[in-house]
Amino acid sequence: MNKLVIPRDSKKEFLGRWNFCVGTGRLGLALQKEYIDTLAFVKKNIDFKYIRGHGLLCDDVGIYREDMVDGKVVPFYNFTYIDRIFDSYLELGIKPFVELGFMPKKLASGAQTVFYWEGNVTPPKDYEKWSDLIKAVVKHFISRYGEEEVLTWPFEIWNEPNLPGFWEHADEKEYFKLYKVTAEAVKSINENLKVGGPAICGGADHWIKDFLKFCDTENAPLDFVSRHAYTSTVGEKTPHFTYQEIMPQEHMFDELKSVRKMIDETKFKRLPFHITEYNTSYHPLNPVHDTAFNAAYICRILSEAGDYVNSFSYWTFSDVFEECDVPRAEFHGGFGLVALHNIPKPTFYAFSFFNELGKELLYKDEHIIVTKKEDKSIVFVAWNEWFGKASDEEKEYEIAIPFKDGKVFVERYTVNEEYANPWGTWREMGRPRFPSKEQIELLRKVAVPHITTNNSVAENGTVNIKFVLKKNEVSLFKLKVVEDESDTYIGLDDTKITSYK
Amino acid sequence: MNKLVIPRDSKKEFLGRWNFCVGTGRLGLALQKEYIDTLAFVKKNIDFKYIRGHGLLCDDVGIYREDMVDGKVVPFYNFTYIDRIFDSYLELGIKPFVELGFMPKKLASGAQTVFYWEGNVTPPKDYEKWSDLIKAVVKHFISRYGEEEVLTWPFEIWNEPNLPGFWEHADEKEYFKLYKVTAEAVKSINENLKVGGPAICGGADHWIKDFLKFCDTENAPLDFVSRHAYTSTVGEKTPHFTYQEIMPQEHMFDELKSVRKMIDETKFKRLPFHITEYNTSYHPLNPVHDTAFNAAYICRILSEAGDYVNSFSYWTFSDVFEECDVPRAEFHGGFGLVALHNIPKPTFYAFSFFNELGKELLYKDEHIIVTKKEDKSIVFVAWNEWFGKASDEEKEYEIAIPFKDGKVFVERYTVNEEYANPWGTWREMGRPRFPSKEQIELLRKVAVPHITTNNSVAENGTVNIKFVLKKNEVSLFKLKVVEDESDTYIGLDDTKITSYK
Amino acid sequence: MNKLVIPRDSKKEFLGRWNFCVGTGRLGLALQKEYIDTLAFVKKNIDFKYIRGHGLLCDDVGIYREDMVDGKVVPFYNFTYIDRIFDSYLELGIKPFVELGFMPKKLASGAQTVFYWEGNVTPPKDYEKWSDLIKAVVKHFISRYGEEEVLTWPFEIWNEPNLPGFWEHADEKEYFKLYKVTAEAVKSINENLKVGGPAICGGADHWIKDFLKFCDTENAPLDFVSRHAYTSTVGEKTPHFTYQEIMPQEHMFDELKSVRKMIDETKFKRLPFHITEYNTSYHPLNPVHDTAFNAAYICRILSEAGDYVNSFSYWTFSDVFEECDVPRAEFHGGFGLVALHNIPKPTFYAFSFFNELGKELLYKDEHIIVTKKEDKSIVFVAWNEWFGKASDEEKEYEIAIPFKDGKVFVERYTVNEEYANPWGTWREMGRPRFPSKEQIELLRKVAVPHITTNNSVAENGTVNIKFVLKKNEVSLFKLKVVEDESDTYIGLDDTKITSYK
Amino acid sequence: MNKLVIPRDSKKEFLGRWNFCVGTGRLGLALQKEYIDTLAFVKKNIDFKYIRGHGLLCDDVGIYREDMVDGKVVPFYNFTYIDRIFDSYLELGIKPFVELGFMPKKLASGAQTVFYWEGNVTPPKDYEKWSDLIKAVVKHFISRYGEEEVLTWPFEIWNEPNLPGFWEHADEKEYFKLYKVTAEAVKSINENLKVGGPAICGGADHWIKDFLKFCDTENAPLDFVSRHAYTSTVGEKTPHFTYQEIMPQEHMFDELKSVRKMIDETKFKRLPFHITEYNTSYHPLNPVHDTAFNAAYICRILSEAGDYVNSFSYWTFSDVFEECDVPRAEFHGGFGLVALHNIPKPTFYAFSFFNELGKELLYKDEHIIVTKKEDKSIVFVAWNEWFGKASDEEKEYEIAIPFKDGKVFVERYTVNEEYANPWGTWREMGRPRFPSKEQIELLRKVAVPHITTNNSVAENGTVNIKFVLKKNEVSLFKLKVVEDESDTYIGLDDTKITSYK
Repeated sequence: MNKLVIPRDSKKEFLGRWNFCVGTGRLGLALQKEYIDTLAFVKKNIDFKYIRGHGLLCDDVGIYREDMVDGKVVPFYNFTYIDRIFDSYLELGIKPFVELGFMPKKLASGAQTVFYWEGNVTPPKDYEKWSDLIKAVVKHFISRYGEEEVLTWPFEIWNEPNLPGFWEHADEKEYFKLYKVTAEAVKSINENLKVGGPAICGGADHWIKDFLKFCDTENAPLDFVSRHAYTSTVGEKTPHFTYQEIMPQEHMFDELKSVRKMIDETKFKRLPFHITEYNTSYHPLNPVHDTAFNAAYICRILSEAGDYVNSFSYWTFSDVFEECDVPRAEFHGGFGLVALHNIPKPTFYAFSFFNELGKELLYKDEHIIVTKKEDKSIVFVAWNEWFGKASDEEKEYEIAIPFKDGKVFVERYTVNEEYANPWGTWREMGRPRFPSKEQIELLRKVAVPHITTNNSVAENGTVNIKFVLKKNEVSLFKLKVVEDESDTYIGLDDTKITSYK
Repeated sequence: MNKLVIPRDSKKEFLGRWNFCVGTGRLGLALQKEYIDTLAFVKKNIDFKYIRGHGLLCDDVGIYREDMVDGKVVPFYNFTYIDRIFDSYLELGIKPFVELGFMPKKLASGAQTVFYWEGNVTPPKDYEKWSDLIKAVVKHFISRYGEEEVLTWPFEIWNEPNLPGFWEHADEKEYFKLYKVTAEAVKSINENLKVGGPAICGGADHWIKDFLKFCDTENAPLDFVSRHAYTSTVGEKTPHFTYQEIMPQEHMFDELKSVRKMIDETKFKRLPFHITEYNTSYHPLNPVHDTAFNAAYICRILSEAGDYVNSFSYWTFSDVFEECDVPRAEFHGGFGLVALHNIPKPTFYAFSFFNELGKELLYKDEHIIVTKKEDKSIVFVAWNEWFGKASDEEKEYEIAIPFKDGKVFVERYTVNEEYANPWGTWREMGRPRFPSKEQIELLRKVAVPHITTNNSVAENGTVNIKFVLKKNEVSLFKLKVVEDESDTYIGLDDTKITSYK
Repeated sequence: MNKLVIPRDSKKEFLGRWNFCVGTGRLGLALQKEYIDTLAFVKKNIDFKYIRGHGLLCDDVGIYREDMVDGKVVPFYNFTYIDRIFDSYLELGIKPFVELGFMPKKLASGAQTVFYWEGNVTPPKDYEKWSDLIKAVVKHFISRYGEEEVLTWPFEIWNEPNLPGFWEHADEKEYFKLYKVTAEAVKSINENLKVGGPAICGGADHWIKDFLKFCDTENAPLDFVSRHAYTSTVGEKTPHFTYQEIMPQEHMFDELKSVRKMIDETKFKRLPFHITEYNTSYHPLNPVHDTAFNAAYICRILSEAGDYVNSFSYWTFSDVFEECDVPRAEFHGGFGLVALHNIPKPTFYAFSFFNELGKELLYKDEHIIVTKKEDKSIVFVAWNEWFGKASDEEKEYEIAIPFKDGKVFVERYTVNEEYANPWGTWREMGRPRFPSKEQIELLRKVAVPHITTNNSVAENGTVNIKFVLKKNEVSLFKLKVVEDESDTYIGLDDTKITSYK
Repeated sequence: MNKLVIPRDSKKEFLGRWNFCVGTGRLGLALQKEYIDTLAFVKKNIDFKYIRGHGLLCDDVGIYREDMVDGKVVPFYNFTYIDRIFDSYLELGIKPFVELGFMPKKLASGAQTVFYWEGNVTPPKDYEKWSDLIKAVVKHFISRYGEEEVLTWPFEIWNEPNLPGFWEHADEKEYFKLYKVTAEAVKSINENLKVGGPAICGGADHWIKDFLKFCDTENAPLDFVSRHAYTSTVGEKTPHFTYQEIMPQEHMFDELKSVRKMIDETKFKRLPFHITEYNTSYHPLNPVHDTAFNAAYICRILSEAGDYVNSFSYWTFSDVFEECDVPRAEFHGGFGLVALHNIPKPTFYAFSFFNELGKELLYKDEHIIVTKKEDKSIVFVAWNEWFGKASDEEKEYEIAIPFKDGKVFVERYTVNEEYANPWGTWREMGRPRFPSKEQIELLRKVAVPHITTNNSVAENGTVNIKFVLKKNEVSLFKLKVVEDESDTYIGLDDTKITSYK
C-alpha cells in the first residue's frame, strides 16, 4: 500500500517539454492521406508543438534537381512537395523542427544509403553546391511562410553522424565540416535563425565534447545541442521482428544529466539541449512499441526527463513509416503512437493523459504525478510499468489530496493490458496482417481507455482517493467540485422509478 | 443458471419490423440542427426506414395560409418548411410515415389545442377547404419527390382521436367523417396511395371495431390499421417529473394480439397493422426513459412484438421535443433514444444491438435472441430487465452454440447500470441542467458500451459460452471464426518482449 | 469619364465599423440548421464581430418559466435553448450584441404582440421579477462564458420603444423606467458590463434628447446610445409585397450626424453611438433587398457611415426570418444578405468586397474607395447605384494609382444585373416558390461574381486603370506586383503549341 | 453561319463509353491525400466507372517481397498499400481496371527501368514465381472484395510491350509467353475473370494481328483486346517542355476502325476492344494539356470514339503524376484533367459537360452533339477547336430544336480562352512555380465555366437557339420548360422597385 499526502500548493510548474516535439517517418510520407489524418488526431489530443523527421533533402521529396542547359549543369530547386508537406504541418498547428539531410543523389560523393527508402548518407561532393542548396531552401521557407514564422524553427544538421550507417565512416571531422558549412549557410540568410547539432545517438558522448570544442575554436554558429536516447539493449533479430531488453528509465536520465553537465562545463553553458529522438526500443519492428508496458514505462520519462533537457521528442507519432520496408502487418512493432489505420496504441494514451495535467505541479515520484489546474481541479496520472517482479504486479494506493469540502466528482481513465490495448484484441483475432474494414472498426472501438466516474467526499480540506494499478496500467484521475443542482428539481425522487426503488 | 442449447439451423427469419419506423417530436423541430445531427446518428446505427411525428399541418410548419385578395379569402399553400424537412429525411435515407394533422388555425372550428406547442385539435370548420388542403399537400409531395417515392409513404389520419385532448370531445362520429373525407382526398390524387387509421391510444379498442365497421359500410378507403401501445400506469405527477409503474411486456403483447384478432374477424383480414407509437411510459417527463432498465425492458418488445404486428414505432428518437415545454435539463425523462446534445441513452444501444442481428433466427425466449448471419457468424442479444425481485438481480447463462471447430473470436458489448449509462454519471456530476461543454464531452464519452473480446474454442461442432447478465443489462455477443495467421510471422515470440515473458 | 489621381500615402485608416455587427431574425431561429450554415458562410466571407436580434426573452427561446410549488408561483430560468444559440455564435467567432426584450408572457402586463412570431411588447407586470430575470440571465452568461468574454458584449435595452407596435403606447416614461431598472440589474452583476439604449427607429430623435436627459438627471447607467436607420419611404403594401421609394444615402448620413451632435452637446459627449439596425427598406417583403441596386446602393453607406457612428448593423444576414410569416418563396424581398437555401444576394458581395479592402485609406468619394494593404497591393471597390437617370447608366473611369514600376496583375470581381444576380435567374426560371434541388444548385452557381484577370504595366510609379461600371454594378479590383518566373522555364515557347502559334 | 434542324426523336442512345475508364499515375500515388481529393472531385463531376494505372506490382506498392527463412528464400506478399489504394477507389465508387505490371525487382531478370519512378520492365526471371504472385494477388482481391466484385474488373497484361522502353527489347515472343502464363494464372483462380491485352501503343498494329493469332493457336485466354491512341507527332523536346503537333481527330478514328476490323476478321469477332489510354500528346510535359484547345479538341473524340470501341480512357485524371520527375510547376503540361492543388483544367469541363448529356442522341456532327433527357429537357454541347485557320476563329450557329411551346429556360456554360482557363491567369501571374495559398485560391476561383441564363420562346413546336462559339470554346446548353408561377404572387410589380421602373 502506497500512502501519499499531497501538499496544498507548490510554486513549481510542470513544463511542457514532454510535448514540445514528436518524430515522424521520412517527410515524403507526409503527402499521404493516412499520415495527415493521424497527425491531425495526434495534434488534437497531445498538442505537440514541433515535428521532426528525416529526408527533407532526399530525392523523393525531390528538392534538388539538375538541368542540362546549353551543355552546362544548372541546379534546379523543386519545392512542389515540400510546400505541400509544410503547408499541411502548419495548417495543423505544428511547426517543423528542421533536420537538414540526407544527401541528394546528384550532390552525393558516394552511393551509400540508409533504410529501405535509401537516404544517401555520404558527404556532398561539392560543398559550395550544398551550401547553395541550403540557402535556397531556407530562403524559400522565409518567402513562403514569413520570417517571423521561420525564426521559430530550429535547424538541426544531419542525423546520427556518429553511426557509419548514417554518415559514411562516421567521420567526425567531415561532419564538423558539414556542420560549419551548413550552419553558416543558414545564418547567411538570417543570423537569428537557430542552428544546432550534432544529433548523435547514445553511447558516443565524446562526440558532444569534440563538437562543442570545434564550435568554440572554429567559431561555428551553435544555438542548441541535440542527441538521441533509446533505452534498449542490442537484442535479437528474427526475419520479422527484433526483440530487445528494455532498461530502467534511470539509464536514460543518467545520460541526459551527463551530457547537460558536459555542456555546462563549456562556454555554451546556457544553450538549450534537445533530445531529438527517444523511445524504448530503437528498432521499428520491436513489438514492445505496441504494448501496454511501453505506455506505462514511458510515463516516468514524460514526468521526469524535462528536469534535465529542454525537450525530448518521441520517435514517432505514427506507424506510417518505411525505414524497414512497407509495414507488413497491422501490428508489427512500429514506433508509432498510433498504429496503421489510425488505431491508437496504449502509449498514445500515456501522452494524451499527460496532456490533461495542470500547470501547477503538486507532487511527483517514480509512479505518479499530481497537478492542480487553474479551475482548482486536481488532475493526476499514475502508472505501473511491470518489469516482471511478481510482487509489483499490482500497486495499491491511498492518497490524501487537499480539496474543497463537499462532494467530489472523480473521473478515472484507464489503459492497461485489458483496456485500450488493440494489440491484445488483434492477437485474439488471429493477428490478421491486412485486417478487413470490420476488423479495423472493432480495433478502433476497443482502443479507448476504460472510463469510470463516481463521487467522493472531501472533509477537513482533504479528499482520500484509493485505487489499485494493475500490471502495465496508466490511470488518469480528475477531481472536480460538484455543484449539486438536485434541489432545483421539484418532486425529484428516483426511487419512484420502476427498478430503482 | 440458464442452460440453453441452440439449434444448428432454422427456416425462420427475424423480420425487420422492429426498426421499420421511429417517432419524432413535432415536424417543425426537424428544421433544427441538433435534431438533424441526432437523426443522422440514429439512422446510421439503427437504420429505421420511416419516421412519424405530429404537426405536419400545424401553423409552425406553416403550410396552410390565407390571403385576402380583392376582398376575398384565398388559400395559400406554403411548402417552404415542409420541403426542407422532408428533403432532410430523404437525404438521410429515411421516409416519412405521414400523419395528417393537426388543424391549421385558419381552418379550425374551435380553439382547443394540445401540447406546449399548441396543436389545434378541433375539426375543420370547412371540410371542403380541408380536403383541398390535403389534395394540395399530396400533390406537392408527388411533384417534388416523384410518384414512385410517395407511393411508399403511408398516410395516417390524425392522432389518438379517442382522447378528448387530441380530438375535441373525442367525437368518434366526427373522426370517421374526417377520416373518410381525408382518405378520399388522398386517393383522389393517386388511388394507390396508402391510407389508414384510427391511430388510437390503448384502452379504447372498441374504436377499432367501430372504425372497421365504418370503413366497411361507408366504403371508406383503408390500407392499414394503426394504434399505439404504452405499458405504463397512470402514475404520479410532480412539477418537474411524472412517475409511473411499468407493466410487464405481456400487457402489450396481449393488446396487440387482441386487435390483430379483431381485424382478422372482418373483411380487412389481411390488412397491415402498425403500432405507430409505443414506449414504456407515455409521459415525456418520466425518468424511466433515461435508465438502463428501459433498455433491458425494451429488448423483449423488439424481439417479440413483430410476431403480432407489421411494425412498431418507438416514441421517439430524440429528446429534441417540446410537448411539455422546452426541456429544462440535460436529462429530464424525455422519450428520446438520444438525450440532448446527442448523448445516446441505454435504450439507443438496445436498438443498435438488435441492428447487429442476423437474418436467420436460431432461437429466442424472453431474455435472449440468437441469430446467424450470412457470413456464418453467430450474433445474439441477451437482457435482464429487473423488476425488483432480489433473486433476478443477476442471471447466469451457459449456452451451447453450433459452430465450426477451432478458435472462436468472441466480442461482447455491454450496457447496464455501470456502462453506457450517462444518466448515472450525470447524477454524480450533481445533475447539471445546462452542462458545460466539458461535461457534455464526458457524458458522450461514458455513453458507450463496455467492449470485451476473447477467444473460445469450438469442439465437436459446438462452442459453449458462459456469461452473467447484471441488473438491467443488455449484452450483444458476436462469435466469429478465427483465421489464425500467426504462423506467417517468422520468428514471432511474444515472450521475448520485456514484461511479457 | 471620371478621372482620378490617387495619392501615394495617407495616414488615414479605413475603420472596421461597417462589419462590427449584423442583424438576425429572432434568436430562436438560431437553432435551425440552415441559419447556422448561412451564418458560418457569412462569418467566413465578411467577418462580422457581433450579431444582434430580437427575442432573447421571448417564449420560444423559453428562458422565463414559472412553477407552482406548494401553491406558490416560483420563477424558473431555462437556459437550454439560449445556451445552444450563444454556443453556436461563439463557436463561429461571433459575439452577441445583446438586446434585452421582449416580454415573457408570464411577466407581461398586457397581451399586445408584434410580428408573426408574437413577441409580447407590454411592460412587465412586476418590475422586481423582471429585474430578477435580467440578473439571472446575465449571471448565467458569465457563469457559462466567463466574465472576460461577457464584458465585451453590449447590452441594449428593448427595441424601437418609440413605436407603439414595439412598446405599448410607445410610452416614453414607461420605457425610461424599464431602461433604468434593466440597466441597473445588469450593472448589479458587474458594474463594467456595458448598457445602452434607446434603440429607437428614425424620425423620433427627440427621444434621444429626452433619454440622455433622463439618464443624466436620474443617474441611470449609460455606456452607449443606439438608434436605427432605414432609407425608405412608407410605400405601398400589396398582399405579397411592399414597395417603397429608396432615398439617397445622404438622408441617412444627415440623421447620423444630427444625433451624434445631439449626444455631443450633453455630458455623454464621448459615448459610443451605434446604429443597431439599418437597411434600405425596413420591410421584410420588399424585393429591393434582392436586387443588384441594393448592393450598389449600400456601398456608399459601408464606405461612409463609419465617419459618423461607431458601428452600423445591416438588418439582416439571412432570409431565415419570420417577422411576416414563414417566407413563401425563394425570393420574397427578405432582408437577408443571403437568400433561403444559402444563396448569396448581390448585397452579400458588396460586403464581402469591402472585407477585402486594406487598412490604409488612400482615397474615397461617393462611388469609390481605394486602399492599400500591408503587402503593398492596392484594393479598391467602385459602385454605380442607379436611381433611374439615363445618363448615369454607365460610368467610365480612369484612375492613376501609385504603384511599383513593372508588370501588374489585376483582378476584377463584378456584381451587377448580369452577374451574381440569382434573383434575375430565378425570374427567368418562372419564379419557382419552392425550387427543386436542381434549381437551387443552379441559383447557387450563378450567385458568384464575374472574375476577370489581366496584366497592366506601371511606369513612373503609376499604373493607370480604366474601367466601366454598368448599371447597379459593384466591382472589386486588386492590383498586385507580378514576380515573373517565366525565365526559369528552360525552353519555354507557348507559340509551339498547336493553336497558339 | 451553321444552320441546323434537330429531329424530334431518335431511337439512338448516346453510350457511356467515353467515361467508362480514366487513367492515373502510378498506383502508389493513390496513397496521397491530394490524389484522393482530386479523384473524389473528378468522380463526382464525371462519374468514371473504372480507373487504370501502372505500377500495381512495382516495389513502391510493395506487394512482392522475399524473406530468408532457414537459409531459404520464401516469397512474401504484402497487401498493406494495395488494400488502402483499392479501398479508396471502391469507397469513391470507382473500380480498378487492373494492369498487371511491371516487374518486382526481386523477380526481374534484368535491371532496365522506365520512368522517374523506375518501373522494372524486364521479363520475370522465374515464370513460376511470377505466376504464383499473380495468383496470390487475384486470390487476395477476391478474399477482400468478394468474387462478385472482382469478376467486374478487367485484367490487362502489361503496358505497351511493343516499345523497348516498356518491355525489354520489345520482345514480342516473350510478351506472348508472359501473356499466356499470366492470363492462365488469373483464370486458375476463377475462370470467369476477364483477361486481355496486348495494350500496345499506336503504330504497331501488326502486334494485334500476331497477338490474336497467338491466342487462337496457343489457346490463350482472351476476353478483350486493348490498345492506346495518342494524336501527337514526335515533336521537339526542351529541358522543361516537349512540344508536338496535334493531328486532327480523324487520325485516331481511322486507327480505331482499322483495329476493330482486324479483330472482326478473326474468331475473336465479338470481343470488346478497349482504348486503355488516349490523349492529344503522349508526353507529360506538353503544355497543350493545360489549354482550352485541348478541351475543344477532345470533345469530338468524346462524341465519336464510342462508335468504334467499347471504351476509351483519358490519360490521366490528375497532374499528381511522376513519370518525368516530381512536377516542377503548378502548370507544367501534365496529362491531368485537374492540375496540382485540385485546379480543374478546361478539358475537365469538356468531360463534365458530356456528363450532363441525356441518353437519347438526337443529332451529332463534328462540332455538336444534341441529346434529350428523360425529363424532356434538351442538352447539347458544341465546340470549336481551333487549328489556326483564321476563318474558323468563331463559329456562328442557329439551331432549330423541337420543344414544347411556351417559355424556355436556357442555361449556357462556357469554357474557352477567357473562361475556366486557369493556365491563362497563371501566366498573367508570372507563372509562379509554387503558388502561394492566395494564388491557388484565385486559380480555383477562375477555373469555373462562365454561366449565363435567359429565356427563349418555343413556337410551333420549335425553339431557335442562336449562339457564337469563340476560339477553342466548349459550350454546354440546357433547355428546360418554364413553369411560370408569377401569377401566384399577388400584387407583384417589379417596376415599383427603385431602379427597376
